Amino acid sequence: VIRRLAVIGVGLLGGSVAKGARAAGLARQIVGVGRDLDRLRPAVDDGTLDDITTALDAGVRDADFVVLAAPVVTNERLLETVWRGAADEAVVTDVGSTKASLARVAARLSESRPLAFVGSHPMAGSDRSGYAVARADLLQGATVVVTPTDATDPRAVKTVTAFWDALGARVATLDPDTHDRVVAAISHLPHLVAFALVDAVRAHEPAAFDFAARGFKDTTRIAASDPTVWQEIFLANRDALAASLAAFSRSIDALVAGIAAGDAATLEAALARIKRAREALR
Amino acid sequence: VIRRLAVIGVGLLGGSVAKGARAAGLARQIVGVGRDLDRLRPAVDDGTLDDITTALDAGVRDADFVVLAAPVVTNERLLETVWRGAADEAVVTDVGSTKASLARVAARLSESRPLAFVGSHPMAGSDRSGYAVARADLLQGATVVVTPTDATDPRAVKTVTAFWDALGARVATLDPDTHDRVVAAISHLPHLVAFALVDAVRAHEPAAFDFAARGFKDTTRIAASDPTVWQEIFLANRDALAASLAAFSRSIDALVAGIAAGDAATLEAALARIKRAREALR
Repeated sequence: VIRRLAVIGVGLLGGSVAKGARAAGLARQIVGVGRDLDRLRPAVDDGTLDDITTALDAGVRDADFVVLAAPVVTNERLLETVWRGAADEAVVTDVGSTKASLARVAARLSESRPLAFVGSHPMAGSDRSGYAVARADLLQGATVVVTPTDATDPRAVKTVTAFWDALGARVATLDPDTHDRVVAAISHLPHLVAFALVDAVRAHEPAAFDFAARGFKDTTRIAASDPTVWQEIFLANRDALAASLAAFSRSIDALVAGIAAGDAATLEAALARIKRAREALR
Repeated sequence: VIRRLAVIGVGLLGGSVAKGARAAGLARQIVGVGRDLDRLRPAVDDGTLDDITTALDAGVRDADFVVLAAPVVTNERLLETVWRGAADEAVVTDVGSTKASLARVAARLSESRPLAFVGSHPMAGSDRSGYAVARADLLQGATVVVTPTDATDPRAVKTVTAFWDALGARVATLDPDTHDRVVAAISHLPHLVAFALVDAVRAHEPAAFDFAARGFKDTTRIAASDPTVWQEIFLANRDALAASLAAFSRSIDALVAGIAAGDAATLEAALARIKRAREALR
């Protein structure tokens, strides 16, 4: 059992981790770290957190398990403070949607001090954000990708995997670069595209919003996602995102070429192939 | 009340129109026209259709209300037969997702014979297709866009509007070109983009499908839509689709430029503006 769990950033994901850990009795004490005490208080009032602070170094000082749950670029900065302040036996992870750049920060920090760190990515985001929508069962059945490198302390992988297991998640393992390439294709690019679909209507055909049916709403639901979180994800994963975008452009260009050529048979065969790929996902 | 309703193409939409008309007692007789009697029989067995035929001219001969519900390019071809075979007093509409090219066919046909035709677009599609998923209440609360031109017989507009009203739809009116521009932005482009998102993963990062979460699934649900239906929509509306795609490209290029420049503040402001536009839709 964890003696003192520190959750840094108590929004949808951090809050859900804290609630889930509380519900499952995974930690004797849970401390929440945030920028604003007033926004942390609801999590004390409902019994999720035992302790709250805006001082990151104080928050992690006695923690044996630390979860960074701020936006991804912010996590990179906070990891330095965590690395300096954490106890020798502490295990540190995060819940960010990009992994390679944080792994590079960790590799650099471990040159001056060894610490048990491994990145995690619980694939349980939402277009909603904030502690108010956090749920103890958010990770139940979700996939969490844990991203060790060759230099990762095996104790970190074991402890962090057991933690996500205990919250009901399925744990998969990928190296940070592979993870970032995979999520660029399956998550970051779809978000970028959804943002652009809404923006195109907003800028060029706003009256069309009146005719939005379920197709548009489902396709662009994630365009209501948190702007800070997604700005940081796009910036942190820009290289893999650019590669995914290039693949997407090739796919859309091929479809558009079929449309422009009026080539019904080829176009229909392409759409049928895509339909089969999509249906295999259900 | 309609004496004899002919529904041409008894799939999701045609079948739902027939079921809805039957349930609401809008027609004394309903005849279904299709290419394959075996596929029409379930609609006779369940009491939706009184009569079925593969002969379009026979199907429409005694009908006073005709609904074309085949894929859009097919509808253009079938409209010629309908126009020749329909009774003088018949009112003709369709349920296709594009309206300008069918309106041009109707304008040409009306030079040799006046007939009460106006296009309709019930915005109640689905990624599922076929009579098996047709429902009497599919149009309940849906928007149906009716698309008269300057040359349209007012009786067609009145009769067709009353028909959709009786099925519980909200009727909006747009001219065919405006309709096609609006649906290119709010429906056809999102479909093209969803198809391309799935195709890009299929072709370049298939292992990423294992990590598809709700965001990807919602964004690409419509990529499982019927290939014949969508091939015909893309071809029939290629000009408006190209304009929408250009607007989308400008939006995605602007976001990508912000990402490439590492301009967090501008990027975040753009995402926040888009989030507000998307949230206004809920």
